[in-house]
Amino acid sequence: MERIILGIDPGYARMGWGVLKVVGGKFECLGFGCVETPKEEEMGTRLAYLNDALGQIIAHYQPHDIAIEELFFAKNVKTAMLVAHARGVIIMRAAMHTGRIFQYRPNAIKLATSGDQKADKKAMMAAVTNILGFDHAPKLDDAADALAVAITHVTIGK
Amino acid sequence: MERIILGIDPGYARMGWGVLKVVGGKFECLGFGCVETPKEEEMGTRLAYLNDALGQIIAHYQPHDIAIEELFFAKNVKTAMLVAHARGVIIMRAAMHTGRIFQYRPNAIKLATSGDQKADKKAMMAAVTNILGFDHAPKLDDAADALAVAITHVTIGK
Repeated sequence: MERIILGIDPGYARMGWGVLKVVGGKFECLGFGCVETPKEEEMGTRLAYLNDALGQIIAHYQPHDIAIEELFFAKNVKTAMLVAHARGVIIMRAAMHTGRIFQYRPNAIKLATSGDQKADKKAMMAAVTNILGFDHAPKLDDAADALAVAITHVTIGK
Repeated sequence: MERIILGIDPGYARMGWGVLKVVGGKFECLGFGCVETPKEEEMGTRLAYLNDALGQIIAHYQPHDIAIEELFFAKNVKTAMLVAHARGVIIMRAAMHTGRIFQYRPNAIKLATSGDQKADKKAMMAAVTNILGFDHAPKLDDAADALAVAITHVTIGK
């Protein structure tokens, strides 16, 4: 059975996304990218931009499952709060399509993707590149993180 | 000039709302209430419920301005994070209608409504009841808070 998985690395200024097709335990990457919200706009407009962009990605790829990184309680509460505003919009938009969104903790994502729950950025990029058979690592960190979320869902799927 | 103001007390489980009509410095309350999201549902569905409910309120009252309480950095970070998820959806939905949403700090709302920036719940209810000429206080705390946000916008409007 073929399944399409959309992974999301949530954020207010930037949202990473990656789409995998899984057939018989084999991965294929259908697409990935990073949505940047316009800095010059008001908060509501930037959140609406995220909502629209995610709606387009969902409409295009028609994922069966959508997975997102769980909120990390960062030392910087102000940043965490902004991410939480964006996550609210993202989770709502995803739920409109799949009903449920799957959430994974950062260390679970690192463990499932690289085998090391304390893997650094570089090790995560290498693991994603290897698993998906890319010649080069995706250029955007956010997209690699989003692909790692999708890989995690397929690997340890709730 | 007549203006319609929608005030919102944001929340994930409950969102208070109140609508004022302002003509020549006089207030008239057009409606208020509290949207409760279904406890048994997943997060995304509850956020979509908020989005729909707010969309209906906006479509019905066609407010010129929408005002919301600024996020209070509560001691309980987990609760604050949930409120931030809901606020993201609310601010996005509001921005789709009015482009900009006005935000006021809790102590500014207390000061503008009751004259005391440390007013307690009871004093705030009494002030809202008095300003809007209600016979009784609104039954729901959340609705009174939302009306206070609308009153604040009219009084000290950014």
